[in-house]
Amino acid sequence: MHHCFARTNLNSIFALLLLMSITGFVSVPLMAQTPNTSEKKPFGIVIHGGAGAPDKQQMTKEKEAEYHAKLKEALQAGHTILERGGTSLDAVAAAITIMEDSPLFNAGKGAVLNFVGHAELDASIMDGSTSASGAVAGVKETKNPILLARAVMEKTSHVMLAGEGTDLFAREQGLPRVPNEYFITDRRREAWQRLKDKEKENKTAPNNKTSDRSDAPQIPDSEETGFGTVGAVALDRDGNLAAGTSTGGRLNKMVGRVGDSPIIGAGNYANNKTCAVSGTGHGEYFIRTVAAHTISVLMEHRQRDVKTATETVLREIETMGGSGGIIAIDKEGRVALPFNTPGMYRGYQLNGAEANVAIW
Amino acid sequence: MHHCFARTNLNSIFALLLLMSITGFVSVPLMAQTPNTSEKKPFGIVIHGGAGAPDKQQMTKEKEAEYHAKLKEALQAGHTILERGGTSLDAVAAAITIMEDSPLFNAGKGAVLNFVGHAELDASIMDGSTSASGAVAGVKETKNPILLARAVMEKTSHVMLAGEGTDLFAREQGLPRVPNEYFITDRRREAWQRLKDKEKENKTAPNNKTSDRSDAPQIPDSEETGFGTVGAVALDRDGNLAAGTSTGGRLNKMVGRVGDSPIIGAGNYANNKTCAVSGTGHGEYFIRTVAAHTISVLMEHRQRDVKTATETVLREIETMGGSGGIIAIDKEGRVALPFNTPGMYRGYQLNGAEANVAIW
Repeated sequence: MHHCFARTNLNSIFALLLLMSITGFVSVPLMAQTPNTSEKKPFGIVIHGGAGAPDKQQMTKEKEAEYHAKLKEALQAGHTILERGGTSLDAVAAAITIMEDSPLFNAGKGAVLNFVGHAELDASIMDGSTSASGAVAGVKETKNPILLARAVMEKTSHVMLAGEGTDLFAREQGLPRVPNEYFITDRRREAWQRLKDKEKENKTAPNNKTSDRSDAPQIPDSEETGFGTVGAVALDRDGNLAAGTSTGGRLNKMVGRVGDSPIIGAGNYANNKTCAVSGTGHGEYFIRTVAAHTISVLMEHRQRDVKTATETVLREIETMGGSGGIIAIDKEGRVALPFNTPGMYRGYQLNGAEANVAIW
Repeated sequence: MHHCFARTNLNSIFALLLLMSITGFVSVPLMAQTPNTSEKKPFGIVIHGGAGAPDKQQMTKEKEAEYHAKLKEALQAGHTILERGGTSLDAVAAAITIMEDSPLFNAGKGAVLNFVGHAELDASIMDGSTSASGAVAGVKETKNPILLARAVMEKTSHVMLAGEGTDLFAREQGLPRVPNEYFITDRRREAWQRLKDKEKENKTAPNNKTSDRSDAPQIPDSEETGFGTVGAVALDRDGNLAAGTSTGGRLNKMVGRVGDSPIIGAGNYANNKTCAVSGTGHGEYFIRTVAAHTISVLMEHRQRDVKTATETVLREIETMGGSGGIIAIDKEGRVALPFNTPGMYRGYQLNGAEANVAIW
């Protein structure tokens, strides 16, 4: 009996150790015994520059090359961090900062103008290992909204700030500040002016109103209207996922309109159990379907793979009348980049291989 | 053979008809044959006035009676609408408006003060039959944030507004406006002043800072700190669910801080397939767990009942260090009202029966 009891105990201890190693409780000693394990662990980054790319025939070779180069630069910045053992949060923030600083995308510099001609920026970031999150909406004078979102996550007990409080906090944190005009490029101002001219022609939306209206001029969804949101999702060598999204929102949006990009679970979500997700497109549909969280849910509770899960949610959005695109990376480093628009600026770089970028 | 084929066809048609009736495709002709069905359909409303109620011994009989009376008034306003065949959206809006107008709760009049001594209000509403949603954050001069959230849902192509844009839109919509002082009661100002005095004693948080800090005075979670959010969820006789939530946020919160109340999927969610949910408590945890949506997910994908699903999510929040409460009603009219604080102001009224209210 005693012998048998001892054996049972040994079995229990073995089971416990196995459980602890699976759950990561003893990952440090196990790592020390098998130093090569970490080198084989998958890692990678996926980015998008919005689902608003025009048809191929509408774009010059020069412009196409410019987008390719900037996407590669963003990917490589993130990928280099991951390759050197850095965190997925750092990789995501680095890639998005580069796209925010570029006038090519509707985020940071190059943002679309709202109803009264200002840039109002939204961003969020989420750490899949802890569910820690940071989000900002209605930023007007902080150069990199994604870094501000990260500061909210790391330096406050809150998750989200909106309106004037965002720039107040940025000032306290010593983050680079810019006048609102910094964000506004000639191209965006012209697109806004064309829309305002149409409004005047139609005499449907008096200038003293801040609201959009169902009878306002209809313009096709494109990068010009705000489908140029940027996002990045990454898996680091420690198996931690992170997601970040940054946007100028929609052209001619109401003052204070908040889309899905800064809403945790809607346009941005990361969970080490499943995947990291960033969305672009009709933000309102991404909010109503809790899109990014639903992708994680389909993987966790319905055993869908990352490709099926993202496509399922994009189809649901399409059924409701919405369009856009989604990027995701799962905990094994598998990626998905579906979109239902003519094109989506996108790319991925995995496990030390070359960067892949595409538009159509 | 021919006979057999015909039988198979009949069986197929019968199966198809059965499927159609289950999925509601032929519900109109079936309803016509059974006119009494609609009268037997369940309906009801559940409300909360926050998970911040003090221990029973700390409350006077008079105060307790005041809370009971106001909760009953809110319930009955919503229940009467439902009983007369009105919509769950109307019931939710009516109940919340009454609680917003009462100084007893941390929503509308009676809201807590932020870091600089202002009231900044958040609210959201969601229609479970269409997933249409409206949300506002950082409202300063609109009497009833829940009605403004509803206007965003019904009168714009957007889902969410934050900051100054909220009050601008309220003005356009002709919604009742008030100065910010209207929201601030003596009781809330005194709680804020006590905290500011403590800050000065500790000399930890200079007044020119808008941020909360980890070294700020610790005060126990209570209604005083902002656990007095209000919410309502309802099922109407047409089987449509709706959820609404309204709050002043957390005492001494950073300027522009957005909690879970206006975040669709976090503090508020409704889906005719499953349930309608409103949360109260540590909003940041409700955002990070996508709490309200997760309850719906557990019902849809894991066949949990509404009680198990709400308790599961509340336990997850507790594990992370958060506290609060949740109310929910499912598509059959079953309700759940769990909380992990000393008390939660709450009540429900179902199917024409009397109102039930409780605090502990």
